[in-house]
Amino acid sequence: VSEPPHRAMSGEEQLIARFFRPLASHPGSLDLLDDAALLSPSEGLDLVLTTDALVSGVHFFANDPADAIARKALRVNLSDLAAKGADPAGYLLSLALPDAVGEEWLASFVSGLEADAQSYGCPLLGGDTVKTPGPLMVSITAVGMLPVGTMVKRRGARAGDRVVVTGSVGDSALGLQLRRISDRISQTLGAEERAHLLSRYLLPQPRCAAASAVRRYAAAAMDISDGLAGDLAKLCNASSVSAMCEMGRVPLSEAAQAALAAEPSLLTTILTGGDDYEILAAVPPHKLAAYRDACTDVGVAVTDIGEFTAGTGPPGFLDSEGKRMEFLHPSFSHF
Amino acid sequence: VSEPPHRAMSGEEQLIARFFRPLASHPGSLDLLDDAALLSPSEGLDLVLTTDALVSGVHFFANDPADAIARKALRVNLSDLAAKGADPAGYLLSLALPDAVGEEWLASFVSGLEADAQSYGCPLLGGDTVKTPGPLMVSITAVGMLPVGTMVKRRGARAGDRVVVTGSVGDSALGLQLRRISDRISQTLGAEERAHLLSRYLLPQPRCAAASAVRRYAAAAMDISDGLAGDLAKLCNASSVSAMCEMGRVPLSEAAQAALAAEPSLLTTILTGGDDYEILAAVPPHKLAAYRDACTDVGVAVTDIGEFTAGTGPPGFLDSEGKRMEFLHPSFSHF
Repeated sequence: VSEPPHRAMSGEEQLIARFFRPLASHPGSLDLLDDAALLSPSEGLDLVLTTDALVSGVHFFANDPADAIARKALRVNLSDLAAKGADPAGYLLSLALPDAVGEEWLASFVSGLEADAQSYGCPLLGGDTVKTPGPLMVSITAVGMLPVGTMVKRRGARAGDRVVVTGSVGDSALGLQLRRISDRISQTLGAEERAHLLSRYLLPQPRCAAASAVRRYAAAAMDISDGLAGDLAKLCNASSVSAMCEMGRVPLSEAAQAALAAEPSLLTTILTGGDDYEILAAVPPHKLAAYRDACTDVGVAVTDIGEFTAGTGPPGFLDSEGKRMEFLHPSFSHF
Repeated sequence: VSEPPHRAMSGEEQLIARFFRPLASHPGSLDLLDDAALLSPSEGLDLVLTTDALVSGVHFFANDPADAIARKALRVNLSDLAAKGADPAGYLLSLALPDAVGEEWLASFVSGLEADAQSYGCPLLGGDTVKTPGPLMVSITAVGMLPVGTMVKRRGARAGDRVVVTGSVGDSALGLQLRRISDRISQTLGAEERAHLLSRYLLPQPRCAAASAVRRYAAAAMDISDGLAGDLAKLCNASSVSAMCEMGRVPLSEAAQAALAAEPSLLTTILTGGDDYEILAAVPPHKLAAYRDACTDVGVAVTDIGEFTAGTGPPGFLDSEGKRMEFLHPSFSHF
């Protein structure tokens, strides 16, 4: 879209035109030239809406690559959609920029959004860009769609359902720990293992590919963003059930296994550290094989780690000796 | 909704339960206990999505009442919906809180959201609350609905259409000026006039009541947030037309008239200062009476201030002597 030449654009309009308009591939974005975006849901579809905000110095390091910051901001939202069984439709971006942010940073930020919009089929619908005297902040609202009545909620798990997680747990929390402190764990890991953990922290891998399997086979689900232990408790809470898992079955990457071998106390980090962006699901036993197959078909591994149980006691993890583990803070919390 | 007693809530969950859950009256909010909100649009409806962010010290004063900050954050979004002809359906809230924010502030903030959700029929659907080391920031994404195909865009004005604005222009920009500098203008105004201008800055009055009139009668529309002069230029741009307005017909409140009489140079502030949150519409002449009637019926005054014209020259305002006025910066811009 070229601007008619008759009027000088404001700085804000120029910024949008140069950096963000190329992202506005969805017709409902109206080329970001309007006050709002237009979405015409097809008949028979529900909408799923989620919003997550990332603040520099809190949710990412200020010197993280701009494209990774952008991708993380989008992906944490996509992870929520996937866990609800929804396919991404688009997103709105709210961006607060400090003065120091320059064109190079913005170009990189936009390239990250562009790449992920392509990968996940989630184009920019609209947004707002403002100045801030504080740290950079990215807030994204993602819109997903799914067949009417198929959204998978946290409520819905029943006693007897299996506790099933995608991918591997704890990598990101270990990656964050590596970023924060260069301690002996770091020394015991190989370069490849370190790189794996660091990249899982920098760049979540939302399980969008598994969304359709989730909505077909899961009785309840959520994404693991605040640590498996605490998030399992939240799902149990919402479903009025409890759960018992075996620590030995929790899927760990080779890097996480190596870190754990070097430092057994990292188990707490792995189970409560957060930023996993895997899907925790309650799957009825007779649907487990179908869920596993459907996920495997799209390249997502799933692991059965335990069982939902009757009662409202806190869910637990058994260690290798069958002893129940205790966590002081099962869940990450800002407050 | 009462929490099952079996599990200690994290600080974040407690904050949501105490302050925000009471706002979650929409069933699709799932009591804010899930990862995402669910919206089931009725058949035949389009969705309109908009997002606007407010940063403390940039978009409002840090010492503004918390309930007014909340209302402003919601209302600037509602204003966008109204200008597109959409009725509000709900909103998602992204809130970055500095440490210093206490329970009293939050309670007041929430009371503002609650009051406006009632007034405008726009309940909380979901959100995210994070900590920030910087200034408080509120980002809201509002969802509106309207009959399929009836969204009013910036594009669509044609030569011969009337330039029509709701309410009065410039009050908010003058109110901001009163907040910033206590100068002789302030002394020439009565207490009531000062209060009027200050309240228009503090608390926008989005013209939601006029949304249905806009979608029935306007060929193009936008809300005036960055100043009438600049926003008219944007609408002209999007519609590939120009416009000529008469300054003498621009609707001014008594307070704005008094300020202008005391200080003629405030005309620039009035036309380019922004934060009006009135609706600027292109209305075909044969629909003008119906538009005026429909707006008047819901308590919104409208004023015909000029005409859209052929050509792509910049739109203009004629002063009382028929001379074209010039503005250095016709539009507010952050960048």
